[in-house]
Amino acid sequence: MQLLQPIEINGMKVSNRVVVPAMVTRLSGEDGHVNQDIIDRYVRYAKGEIGLIVVEAMAIHKSKSGPLLRISDEDYVPGLTDLVSRIHDSSDSKVVPQIIHFLKVARSGWRQTLDMLSLEDIELIVEQFGDAVARARAAGFDGAELHSAHAYTLASFLSRANPRTDEYSGRTLVGRLTMIGRVMENVRKKVGTDFPVGVRYVADEYIKDGYTIGDAKLIGLRLAQLGFDYLSLSVGGKFEDAIHKQGEVPYPYTGYSGDRCMPGDWYPPALHAHLGGEIKAFVNEKGYDVPVMVAGKISDPDIAERLVADGVVDMVAIARGLLADPDWVKKVKADRRDHIIQCDYCNWCKILDGTHQKVRCTIWPKDALQAPEYALSNEVPAWPEAGAGLKGEYADGAVTLSWNAAVGSIAGYDIYRAEDSGDIKQTKAVKARRWNDRTVMAGVKYRYYVRARDESGHPSAPSDSVIVEPRMAPPQFA
Amino acid sequence: MQLLQPIEINGMKVSNRVVVPAMVTRLSGEDGHVNQDIIDRYVRYAKGEIGLIVVEAMAIHKSKSGPLLRISDEDYVPGLTDLVSRIHDSSDSKVVPQIIHFLKVARSGWRQTLDMLSLEDIELIVEQFGDAVARARAAGFDGAELHSAHAYTLASFLSRANPRTDEYSGRTLVGRLTMIGRVMENVRKKVGTDFPVGVRYVADEYIKDGYTIGDAKLIGLRLAQLGFDYLSLSVGGKFEDAIHKQGEVPYPYTGYSGDRCMPGDWYPPALHAHLGGEIKAFVNEKGYDVPVMVAGKISDPDIAERLVADGVVDMVAIARGLLADPDWVKKVKADRRDHIIQCDYCNWCKILDGTHQKVRCTIWPKDALQAPEYALSNEVPAWPEAGAGLKGEYADGAVTLSWNAAVGSIAGYDIYRAEDSGDIKQTKAVKARRWNDRTVMAGVKYRYYVRARDESGHPSAPSDSVIVEPRMAPPQFA
Repeated sequence: MQLLQPIEINGMKVSNRVVVPAMVTRLSGEDGHVNQDIIDRYVRYAKGEIGLIVVEAMAIHKSKSGPLLRISDEDYVPGLTDLVSRIHDSSDSKVVPQIIHFLKVARSGWRQTLDMLSLEDIELIVEQFGDAVARARAAGFDGAELHSAHAYTLASFLSRANPRTDEYSGRTLVGRLTMIGRVMENVRKKVGTDFPVGVRYVADEYIKDGYTIGDAKLIGLRLAQLGFDYLSLSVGGKFEDAIHKQGEVPYPYTGYSGDRCMPGDWYPPALHAHLGGEIKAFVNEKGYDVPVMVAGKISDPDIAERLVADGVVDMVAIARGLLADPDWVKKVKADRRDHIIQCDYCNWCKILDGTHQKVRCTIWPKDALQAPEYALSNEVPAWPEAGAGLKGEYADGAVTLSWNAAVGSIAGYDIYRAEDSGDIKQTKAVKARRWNDRTVMAGVKYRYYVRARDESGHPSAPSDSVIVEPRMAPPQFA
Repeated sequence: MQLLQPIEINGMKVSNRVVVPAMVTRLSGEDGHVNQDIIDRYVRYAKGEIGLIVVEAMAIHKSKSGPLLRISDEDYVPGLTDLVSRIHDSSDSKVVPQIIHFLKVARSGWRQTLDMLSLEDIELIVEQFGDAVARARAAGFDGAELHSAHAYTLASFLSRANPRTDEYSGRTLVGRLTMIGRVMENVRKKVGTDFPVGVRYVADEYIKDGYTIGDAKLIGLRLAQLGFDYLSLSVGGKFEDAIHKQGEVPYPYTGYSGDRCMPGDWYPPALHAHLGGEIKAFVNEKGYDVPVMVAGKISDPDIAERLVADGVVDMVAIARGLLADPDWVKKVKADRRDHIIQCDYCNWCKILDGTHQKVRCTIWPKDALQAPEYALSNEVPAWPEAGAGLKGEYADGAVTLSWNAAVGSIAGYDIYRAEDSGDIKQTKAVKARRWNDRTVMAGVKYRYYVRARDESGHPSAPSDSVIVEPRMAPPQFA
């Protein structure tokens, strides 16, 4: 598989094309120091043999926030050094931190915007980015990633909503690109050119008057010219359309651009891959072979393989899919794809993040703070002697499925659905023995089966299939 | 060209694959009757030999609104009959009205939502739709189109934001589809099955928690099952993200979903065509060959041709492009593509619509209420003896172009731009002799030329080209 081929990024030897992009964990304390929970979370990914682990955003400054890692001071380096060495001790996964600056937000809904920054403020940010990347190198990280995506400072400079009118002006693309150029120049001054420095930015802002793929291609070109060692693409996640709840700090993933950034189950898979592909094609055509990765509902190994094998992108970034199952790569390697615990995009993790609670996955065992360990076992869940007894009934616009409890150590059930003669695909993961499918349509024949699974993903055999053909009163054209 | 091939829609013989979709004109008075300005606007499209003209939305009820046509009463039929016969007298263009129901909105920002409708209210709407389509048939229209897109009542039933919990429930797809089924059933009862009835709906709501292509395919299937004779696809345009200005009636195209619905110049061309293609492929696969059309920045004849020739969609809907130049089809037929006055997506028309002013095009002559007539002429604009004198200079992140006045009856200038060795494309239309290009990037070589054009699109020869290579300070990695 092309997905499992190594790739070298400015000397960093990444053993496969799978990346866990930065995900807020809310596991650190308010002090911003690495703690045991943080170590456990990232070591878990390393044990899963993921090619590149991007550690959640860590701040270059001391500005107030929810639980967030910091890299704003030498005091944070020992903890980060420990984190890196624990990861390196676990597998050959490479690890880089995501380095962030953010502007101030208040419970009142007020937020600091770029036009409030003085030139001195900007100089300080430029300095802080350089110093932070130098600390990342000192801590033993294999590289670093600048966070220039979503609602944060560097992204605000790139945005079409950038309100400045000086040399960092939002009125021209060149003006919008000035800050990232200054930051990268200082980063290189501090760490040299032989330290891999990637950048994450959005391929489409998905906000009113925001930039789209046209600008994103040119931004990608500039980032390549600036010597970034990889381009990691996300979309949306902006403050401009955030929904502010009285008395709460605005959370930039509450609006439509937040939907796009962490698309729910009603979005198609790999929905932003084509944007990554357009950017890669454009940047390559201009003579830069910088690796490009893209995120967004890529958790099906076949889709991931196709994106890499067809050269759409160089690497795939899988966030929620790897949170659900950090052993995704290991299971693909072992040709145990049906052991993968598939994310069903319920976005409970997003809710936990948005409310500053420790981020977990609803598919994990109750109260677990980390994904269960995986070891190939011969004890797999089974259906009782009477069988799974899967029943499916259509009523009131929905198909209600119910089935018998499986035998063994059962963590949950995966529901598979095929439409007409199409492929059968996992559609939902549940803990109960009942589920309502509310998106069925008359004129389509639905086939379902259910598989039980234990904590680490060992699946039972599929249950018998049930076929349901919803009916809808035909119109009377008498 | 496949674009110029006829297509038959339930007996309606449409002479080519180009459609002018419904566009609000604000030309009617508050009384909702057809007037001379309305007739002139649509006769102008007919003279342009557009295959299918969809007349702007006309209301099935008397609810207050800005200037809007009505079909809510027999009194409106004579005016509509006159409109239709004037169109039919002008060319073989076919003409259908878009039939709309909308809920109440107030200057306070309050708006009526679906859950405020009693079952009696719903019965009334079902009746009104049937009666309105019957009036359309009586007026001589070639068919009718139900408006089930954007922010209006039928679309609100289809929406994932539908708040009802009864048989019209937003909780299931079947519930969301109940209303359009009841309406179509009554429409067929009133006009029979031999009258073409199409439907417009959105392929993606582009709002938080809104439906996406997954549901849109199933909705398309249901609409085909219901016997709709064509599917016309738009996107977005919802109240849910509208920006409310104090004291003004909310306008559903002010938010992000409005950006997507009428995408500005920073969006790529034909950006929603792939959604139309997915819906067509799905519905065809399920055994329905209903024609599918899609809108969204399709004004380049080559792109339009490719979409039809490749079978992505059956027809292309061009709104702003045909407002700018109603003779688009005629000029394509005559192989005079460079006479087409190209829309540059400045969205002045959208601003006029949103502020209830008569909708015109900024490319038209000042104060003109209709596009100028077109007749092939040998008198074309020319450059003065000294030439166009095109100058291009890069400074402060932008390229400033300036040039000499052309000789003749000059309505404006089109600016063409090529990037590196790419094709040269029209980028902007201006009336002045100066333009700033603010989206240029260092590392790309830009070639520009300018053409002058008269009122009906006769172009001058291209000016000499000017090449500009923006510079950006390279980063210093010392």
